[in-house]
Amino acid sequence: MSSTLKDKLLRKESGILTYGMTPPKSSHPPEKIREIADKQIERLRGAGIDGLVLYDVQDEAERTDENRPFPFLKALDPTEYYEQYLKQELGVPAIVYHCVACEGPDKLASWILRGRDEQRYSVFVGASSSRQQVQIRLPEAYRMSGILNERLLPGGVVIPERHRSKGDEHERARAKQEAGCGFFVSQATFDVEASKSFLSDYYYSSRESGAEMAPILFNLAPCGSAKTLEFMKWLGISIPKWLENELIHSVDILDKSVQLSRQVFRELYRFGLEKGIPIGCSVESVSTRKVEIEASIQLLRDIREDMSRIGAELAPSIPSHN
Amino acid sequence: MSSTLKDKLLRKESGILTYGMTPPKSSHPPEKIREIADKQIERLRGAGIDGLVLYDVQDEAERTDENRPFPFLKALDPTEYYEQYLKQELGVPAIVYHCVACEGPDKLASWILRGRDEQRYSVFVGASSSRQQVQIRLPEAYRMSGILNERLLPGGVVIPERHRSKGDEHERARAKQEAGCGFFVSQATFDVEASKSFLSDYYYSSRESGAEMAPILFNLAPCGSAKTLEFMKWLGISIPKWLENELIHSVDILDKSVQLSRQVFRELYRFGLEKGIPIGCSVESVSTRKVEIEASIQLLRDIREDMSRIGAELAPSIPSHN
Repeated sequence: MSSTLKDKLLRKESGILTYGMTPPKSSHPPEKIREIADKQIERLRGAGIDGLVLYDVQDEAERTDENRPFPFLKALDPTEYYEQYLKQELGVPAIVYHCVACEGPDKLASWILRGRDEQRYSVFVGASSSRQQVQIRLPEAYRMSGILNERLLPGGVVIPERHRSKGDEHERARAKQEAGCGFFVSQATFDVEASKSFLSDYYYSSRESGAEMAPILFNLAPCGSAKTLEFMKWLGISIPKWLENELIHSVDILDKSVQLSRQVFRELYRFGLEKGIPIGCSVESVSTRKVEIEASIQLLRDIREDMSRIGAELAPSIPSHN
Repeated sequence: MSSTLKDKLLRKESGILTYGMTPPKSSHPPEKIREIADKQIERLRGAGIDGLVLYDVQDEAERTDENRPFPFLKALDPTEYYEQYLKQELGVPAIVYHCVACEGPDKLASWILRGRDEQRYSVFVGASSSRQQVQIRLPEAYRMSGILNERLLPGGVVIPERHRSKGDEHERARAKQEAGCGFFVSQATFDVEASKSFLSDYYYSSRESGAEMAPILFNLAPCGSAKTLEFMKWLGISIPKWLENELIHSVDILDKSVQLSRQVFRELYRFGLEKGIPIGCSVESVSTRKVEIEASIQLLRDIREDMSRIGAELAPSIPSHN
């Protein structure tokens, strides 16, 4: 099963679908963690995902002066949570977020070397703010990974919203790729215009230089309350004003956000397919409320349907890429 | 015929359709001007427009330090051009742009009083930059118009792209309306997200205060060459990066720009109809090249079709507004 994700990533395929989750609080007793994991497994069984995405939650208090709408609670290590609670039971590979800016070279090296007999996937995360003290920079981390463990496939973060002001997100992505990054995952996506502008520059600059485009997984997350909306904004997620208004004034904010997220992804997926940019999707719930988690599972199923429908619809006109 | 535009504006209807033009250079001999006017009349006959929009071209060299891609050439006065060359022949009313920041109160008063026996329409334009010396501010101009000539229906400019950074374009529009402004016209529109955010804030703030929404005519203009694109950017028109890339890399930039403009308008018109925001369209050609003018006429016809189609499609679900 795990070869599927590897093949799709290495062949730079469109339509990779993952589900993202944050490990439970580390203060929970093991039975409670087992219970949480079992619920997650039950929800995801048969959802047809290519893999899990496991976040490495950092406090990030240095990133902003605003108060965190939800308190920061130390979570289980994502690799351990996956290996002890999900791997066997769910039978899908995991892309594990790993903060490479948070530790020294020794610790990073041993993390990279861990479990070298099996295929692993990661998203390497750099400093969350320029105020954070950094021991290892991202390009070095990608190079270390390539040298130490060829069975670890490292990915990176893209922030298309940053492209609006800085205009260089495609160059940042390219630089990561050149250091060894094989795919990208975004933050929760609501800004179609900024995302398309990033994709467009990434596409045309790749075409010009003859470089291959790596799969880009757009993250989607339902928003079920004004508080979740505030939390998303606190996380730095960019939400166009009209979309925020639609959510705030909706009689059913959760259902509206699922509709709007689906609409956002459909437009991006279509845009990518038409140009041969390999686009995928990672769904998550940024909240731990049951209704929001369940909405994220529904969104996951909706996106899978949308992917097949749009794929079939555009199949005759899609440019062939290898 | 001229009552139609008046009624539509006063009833705040959706679907007003106009065609914008810049008067010919004033250095042309009268026969040449007649010839230009005749061509424009021929193209517009039967196009089903509610009115013309006549621009009052200012140099605007103070607005930016960048070189103007096309030279500034003094044009005929728009009121005179309309009255002498188009009014009888075409039989549709004109919305005449008038720079109220460019002249003293006496001159503005006599312009407002001119031809008081007939219905007139105008878009009042303020200073093009904060560096420009202003004699009369917009709110005063609207108030003067209301006091001096009730048969002049003044409109104003909206700049939705400004809403992205400043977030107050809906308040600016509302302030103009309170001073007497009855409708709005935008610059050439390419940025759907910014336009929707402006519309959304305008809608929700109007709903909250119980204020009526005035018709907003989104301007569309084909772009047939890299030079026209440069000129649009010089004019301050905001073009999302992906859309600029699509144009630059297209094998047929003109056709692509018409397709994309149509797509932009369809999304905005649908968004407006669903909420009961009265949206209209004004098509123009910013270039004087024949192919671009002809493309603008085609776009006009396409938009008229799109308006009826979307109107019919959404008719059962449109909220009723008076």
